[in-house]
Amino acid sequence: MFLWPVRVYYEDTDSGGVVYYANYLRFLERARTEFLRSLGFEQDRLIEEEGLIFVVRSVNIDYLRPACFNDRLLVSAVPGEPTGAGLRFSQRIWRADDLTGPSEDSNIDETKCLCRAEVRVVCLDRATMRPRRLPEAMKEILE
Amino acid sequence: MFLWPVRVYYEDTDSGGVVYYANYLRFLERARTEFLRSLGFEQDRLIEEEGLIFVVRSVNIDYLRPACFNDRLLVSAVPGEPTGAGLRFSQRIWRADDLTGPSEDSNIDETKCLCRAEVRVVCLDRATMRPRRLPEAMKEILE
Amino acid sequence: MFLWPVRVYYEDTDSGGVVYYANYLRFLERARTEFLRSLGFEQDRLIEEEGLIFVVRSVNIDYLRPACFNDRLLVSAVPGEPTGAGLRFSQRIWRADDLTGPSEDSNIDETKCLCRAEVRVVCLDRATMRPRRLPEAMKEILE
Amino acid sequence: MFLWPVRVYYEDTDSGGVVYYANYLRFLERARTEFLRSLGFEQDRLIEEEGLIFVVRSVNIDYLRPACFNDRLLVSAVPGEPTGAGLRFSQRIWRADDLTGPSEDSNIDETKCLCRAEVRVVCLDRATMRPRRLPEAMKEILE
Repeated sequence: MFLWPVRVYYEDTDSGGVVYYANYLRFLERARTEFLRSLGFEQDRLIEEEGLIFVVRSVNIDYLRPACFNDRLLVSAVPGEPTGAGLRFSQRIWRADDLTGPSEDSNIDETKCLCRAEVRVVCLDRATMRPRRLPEAMKEILE
Repeated sequence: MFLWPVRVYYEDTDSGGVVYYANYLRFLERARTEFLRSLGFEQDRLIEEEGLIFVVRSVNIDYLRPACFNDRLLVSAVPGEPTGAGLRFSQRIWRADDLTGPSEDSNIDETKCLCRAEVRVVCLDRATMRPRRLPEAMKEILE
Repeated sequence: MFLWPVRVYYEDTDSGGVVYYANYLRFLERARTEFLRSLGFEQDRLIEEEGLIFVVRSVNIDYLRPACFNDRLLVSAVPGEPTGAGLRFSQRIWRADDLTGPSEDSNIDETKCLCRAEVRVVCLDRATMRPRRLPEAMKEILE
Repeated sequence: MFLWPVRVYYEDTDSGGVVYYANYLRFLERARTEFLRSLGFEQDRLIEEEGLIFVVRSVNIDYLRPACFNDRLLVSAVPGEPTGAGLRFSQRIWRADDLTGPSEDSNIDETKCLCRAEVRVVCLDRATMRPRRLPEAMKEILE
C-alpha cells in the first residue's frame, strides 16, 4: 500500500487545537500526487505534454479522531479500477506512532485511522475542460 | 433559505485556474458559522460560557462546476432535524450571477449549483472532547 | 481611508489560539482587491481585456497584537504614489471593537492596530511576465 | 546551512499559475520548525513541558522569482545571534534544480534564490503571553 508521510505544522491546525477539517483534503491530495509520481506520472508534464488535468468530482470523508500539531501522519492512496476518464481513490490517514513496526500492509490497523475518505477524480482535456480517457499507460498500470 | 455571500480571491484558487477543492469546505463553514450567528449563537461565547465546541464528523461533497477567481458566490446552509449531539447541514454553492432576481427560495435553481454538500457536525464538551447534547435553545430554534 | 471588514473563522486560526501569521497576508490582499474594485478596477477583467496582472514584490509586516477566532477586523489599504509599473500600499489591521464610532479617519487610532504592513506590488504583462506601466486610468485616480 | 525540502502542490498555487504570496510564509515556518527539531527541540514538548510558545513578530520578504506547481524547493533557516526572548532567522527559498551538486554551502548561489526573508520570532510564556527568555539549552546551541 502506498503511504505518504505528512508532518502537521501550525499552518494546518485551528484554534480548536486540531487539524482544520479542510486541511485533511490537502493531505489526501499530496498522497495522490506522490502515488502518481511513484508510478512515473508527473502532473506538470501531463498538462504540458498531453494537455490533460485531473480534477476532483466528489469526496466522502469521515473524521474519526483528530490529528494534532506536530503529529507525524501517514496518508494512504489506494486506486480503484479505472473507468474511462474516472479514477477512484480509497484513502486513510493514520498517526505514524499508532502503527507498529514497518509500515507494511500487515501492520495497518483499520480501526486506528484518523480519517477515511473516498475520492473520485476525473481526467479532463485542459482546453475544453471535457472528460478525456485516462492515458493508456496509466490505465494499464492501475489495472 | 440562509445564503451567505463569498467573494473568490487569489488565495482561494489554484494553478488549474479554479477554486482549490479543499477551499469549498472553508466557504461551507463560513456559511454554517454565519447561519448560527444569525440565530444568535456566537461560537466563541459557546466555548467560553458553555464549554462546548462543534466539530465536523463527515462531509459528502460533489463538485459539479468550478468557481473561478473574482466570482461572487452564495453559500446556503440548511439544517436538518437535530439529534442529541448531532446536527446535519445540507449546503449548496451558487455563482450569484446564475441566480435571477432577489435571492429568495423561488429563484434558487438546484440544477445550477456549483457544488452540493452534506455535512454532519457534532457538539462536544471541550474539556472531555465527548459528545454533549446541543444547547436547548439551539435545539428549539432548529426544530 | 478605505477599510474592508474581515471576520476571523476557524480556517484562519492555528492551535496557538490566534490567527496564523501567513493568513494576515490573505486579509491584506482582500483589502487591496476590494480597494481597486471600489475604484472600478476588476482584476479578472484587467487580465482578460488588458493582459495585465498584479504580483507582490515585497512585504514588510509587523505583528503587534494577535487577532482571535470570531474577531471582526477592519483592514485598510492606502496607496502610495504610483511609479511606472509599481504600486505601494500601506496597510493596517484593527479589531473593529477597538475603533470608536463610525470608521472614519479621525477615529482610527494607530496605536491600537494589530498589524502594520508595507506591500509593494508590480504590474506585469501576463504573456511575458515583464513589468508594464500601470493602466493610465488607474494612475490618474491614484495620483 | 540547514535546508528543508518542500514540494509545491496545487494547494500552494493560485490562478496566476504560481505559488500564492502568503504560502511562502508557510514554507518558511516549516523550515524553522524542522531546523529547531534538528537541534532536538520539539515545539509541542516546549509548550507542554515548559509552557513556552514561539510567535512571529515581523517578516520582511522579497519575492524575486516565482515558484510553480510541482517545483521542488529548498528552504534555508539561518539563525542570528539570540537576544533575550528574541530570535532572528535569515531565510531563502531556492528551486532545487537551480542548485548544482549536493546542497552544500559552496553550491548555494545567492543570486538564484526565489525569495529572501528576514523573520523575527519571540519566545512567550503561554499563560501570560509575555516575552520569556529563550531556553538556556537553545541559547547555547545557537550562539
